[in-house]
Amino acid sequence: MPTGSAGRPVVCFAMAEESLLAAFDAAALERLAEAATVVRDDTGAPRVLHDFDSATQPWLPEVEVLITGWGAPVVDRDVLRRLPRLRAVVHSAGSVKGFLDLAVWDAGVQVSTAAEANAVPVAEFTLATVILASKRFARHQAAYRASGRKRSGDEVGLEHGSYGCTVGVVGASRIGRRVIDLLRALDVTVLVSDPFLDEDAARQVGAELVELPDLLRRSHIVTLHAPETPQTRHLIDERALELMRDGSVLINTARGSLVDTAAMERHAGSGRLDAYLDVTDPEPLPADSPLFRMPNVVVTPHIAGSMGNEVLRLGRTAVEEVERLAAGRPLRFPVRASDLAHIA
Amino acid sequence: MPTGSAGRPVVCFAMAEESLLAAFDAAALERLAEAATVVRDDTGAPRVLHDFDSATQPWLPEVEVLITGWGAPVVDRDVLRRLPRLRAVVHSAGSVKGFLDLAVWDAGVQVSTAAEANAVPVAEFTLATVILASKRFARHQAAYRASGRKRSGDEVGLEHGSYGCTVGVVGASRIGRRVIDLLRALDVTVLVSDPFLDEDAARQVGAELVELPDLLRRSHIVTLHAPETPQTRHLIDERALELMRDGSVLINTARGSLVDTAAMERHAGSGRLDAYLDVTDPEPLPADSPLFRMPNVVVTPHIAGSMGNEVLRLGRTAVEEVERLAAGRPLRFPVRASDLAHIA
Repeated sequence: MPTGSAGRPVVCFAMAEESLLAAFDAAALERLAEAATVVRDDTGAPRVLHDFDSATQPWLPEVEVLITGWGAPVVDRDVLRRLPRLRAVVHSAGSVKGFLDLAVWDAGVQVSTAAEANAVPVAEFTLATVILASKRFARHQAAYRASGRKRSGDEVGLEHGSYGCTVGVVGASRIGRRVIDLLRALDVTVLVSDPFLDEDAARQVGAELVELPDLLRRSHIVTLHAPETPQTRHLIDERALELMRDGSVLINTARGSLVDTAAMERHAGSGRLDAYLDVTDPEPLPADSPLFRMPNVVVTPHIAGSMGNEVLRLGRTAVEEVERLAAGRPLRFPVRASDLAHIA
Repeated sequence: MPTGSAGRPVVCFAMAEESLLAAFDAAALERLAEAATVVRDDTGAPRVLHDFDSATQPWLPEVEVLITGWGAPVVDRDVLRRLPRLRAVVHSAGSVKGFLDLAVWDAGVQVSTAAEANAVPVAEFTLATVILASKRFARHQAAYRASGRKRSGDEVGLEHGSYGCTVGVVGASRIGRRVIDLLRALDVTVLVSDPFLDEDAARQVGAELVELPDLLRRSHIVTLHAPETPQTRHLIDERALELMRDGSVLINTARGSLVDTAAMERHAGSGRLDAYLDVTDPEPLPADSPLFRMPNVVVTPHIAGSMGNEVLRLGRTAVEEVERLAAGRPLRFPVRASDLAHIA
C-alpha cells in the first residue's frame, strides 16, 4: 500500500493504457516519481485505474491526486466517497467535461487541464495554414502537378501573399487567442469576433473586436476557433460565405459542424473561395466528396491537434502540475466549476 | 528639370515598369514624395529609367538617389560619369550582384538592399512547412484523399509532431537566420551548419553549431538556406541523404541545385524520407517527374519568395531607406563591397 508523506502526494493514473503510453515517456515518469509517490503494480510499473472498485483496489482511500487522460472513468459523488483523500484531478488531455461530475468541485477537489498544451499544435497548424493559404499553396501545387509548368498568380486564381492581409479569428477561445498571438510574427491585421469578448479584452489579446458579418466582409483569411455548441452549428452557412470577399480563404481546424458543407462546396467549387479544412461535417468526409478534388481546397483528416510527440507535451504539463501541488504552489491551469459552461 | 533641396534628394526609379507597379503602391509613392523630389514624366507619373542615355535624359546629372529593382540597367564606371551627383542606390529587390559594378562602391555611392524584406516570406513559408511536415501533412492528405478514411500515423508512415523535434538549418544566411528566429515560437531544438559561422555567432542566432554530417544525422527536419555556388552544388547528395534519419524530412526553399534530384527521388520513393520542395533541379520539374506522384512529397513552383502583396514590402523598405537618406541617418540595410563575395 502506498504511503504519501508531507509534500509527496500519492498519485494514481486513471485513463486508457494507450493514453498513458502516449503522453508519459520515461523522462516524464521519472520526474513524476521525484515529486510524488506513484501507485504501482507488482512489476513496479505505474498502475492505471479503469474503475474505482475498492474491493479489488483496497488502497484507493490513500490516493490524493488522480492523473486522468483520454478514456478516464467517470468521477462522481459515489466515486469521491471511495477517494476520501483526493485533493486534485490533473487531466493530461483537453476537456474534463465528459468524466468529471460537478460533485468534484463541490468536494473542494482542485482540477487542472492540459487544454492549453493541447491548444499549442492546433494554433501552430493554423499559423502554418494561414501562411500557405495566403500564398495560394493549394492552387499552385495542383496547377504545377497537373502541368509541370509554373503558373502565374493570375493563372491559378487571385494571389496575394500574407503581407498586409487581414486575418479574421472567429472565437477568442484558448486556441483562438493562441492563434492571435502567433500571428504577431506576420505583417497582418487581426480581427476577432466572439460574443463573450469585450473591447478591452480584445485589445489585450491584440486584435480588433468586430461583429462576425464585419469580420467576414473584411478578412482575406477567416479562421474558425469557436466551440461546438447548438448556437455555433452552421455558424458559417450560405449567408456567411456570401459575405466573404472574393478570393478569400476559410480555415477550419475547430469542428466540422461550424460550417455548412454543402454551401462550402458551392463557394469553393465556383473558385470564389479557397478552403483549408482539417475538420469536416461529416467526418470523415466520404471518399467521393467533391472537396477532395478541388484545386483550391485542402482537406486533412483532423491532424491539427496533438499527435505523436505532441501528446508528450500533455504528459509533461500534467507532471508539472503535480510538482506544483507537491510544492504547495497553485495550479497553473486550474478549471473552475464556472468554466464548464463556456468550454467545449 | 527636377531640383532637390537640402534634405530632399532627387530620386529616380530605374527598373522594369512591372517592378515599379508591383512594389510601389499609391501609399508608398506618396510617402516617397514627402521625403524626396521624384523625377516625373509629363503626366506627373514617376519616370522609370531603362538606360542612362543623357542625350534623351538631360536631367540625369541632377539625380542623387536611384531606386532600382528587378530589370534595373547596369550601373558601371561609365554610367557613374553621367550621374555625378549620385550618392545612393536603393535596391527594392534582393541581390545587387547582377547590375552594380564595384565602381559604384569605389565612387563612394551608398548601396542598400531589400534582401531582408525579401527574406521574410521565404522564412515564413519555411516555418509553415516545418510545422506541417512534422505533422506528416502530405502523407495524411494523400491517404485521406485516396480513401475518405482517416489513417493513423502508423498507417501513413512514421509520425511525430513538432514537439521536441530537432530542426537542422543548413546555412546561416539572411533567410536561415530568420528561420531560426521564427522557430523560437516552437518547442524544437535548432541546429545550424555553416562554414562561415563560429560558435559565438551561432549562439547569438540561437542555434547549436554543428558540422553538416552531424546535423543530417540528428535532425528530424532539415531545411536548406545555403546560397547557390559551385561549392554548394549537390550539397545534399546520395551520401548526405543516407545520413538523414529514417522518417526525417528535407525542406528546400533555397535553390534546386543544392539537392541531387535523382538521389532525392530514391530516398523519397522508398518512403524513407519526406520532402517539401519549393525549388528543384531542373526547374520547373518535368510533368512526368515521379516526385509529383509521391504521397510523402510536396512540390510547389518556387512560391516561397515575395509574391503578390509581399512585393509591396520591398517597395516600402526602399522608401524607408530614402527617408533615412533624406534625414541624414545611416541606411538600415547597407551593402558593402566586401559583402558581395558572400552573397548569392
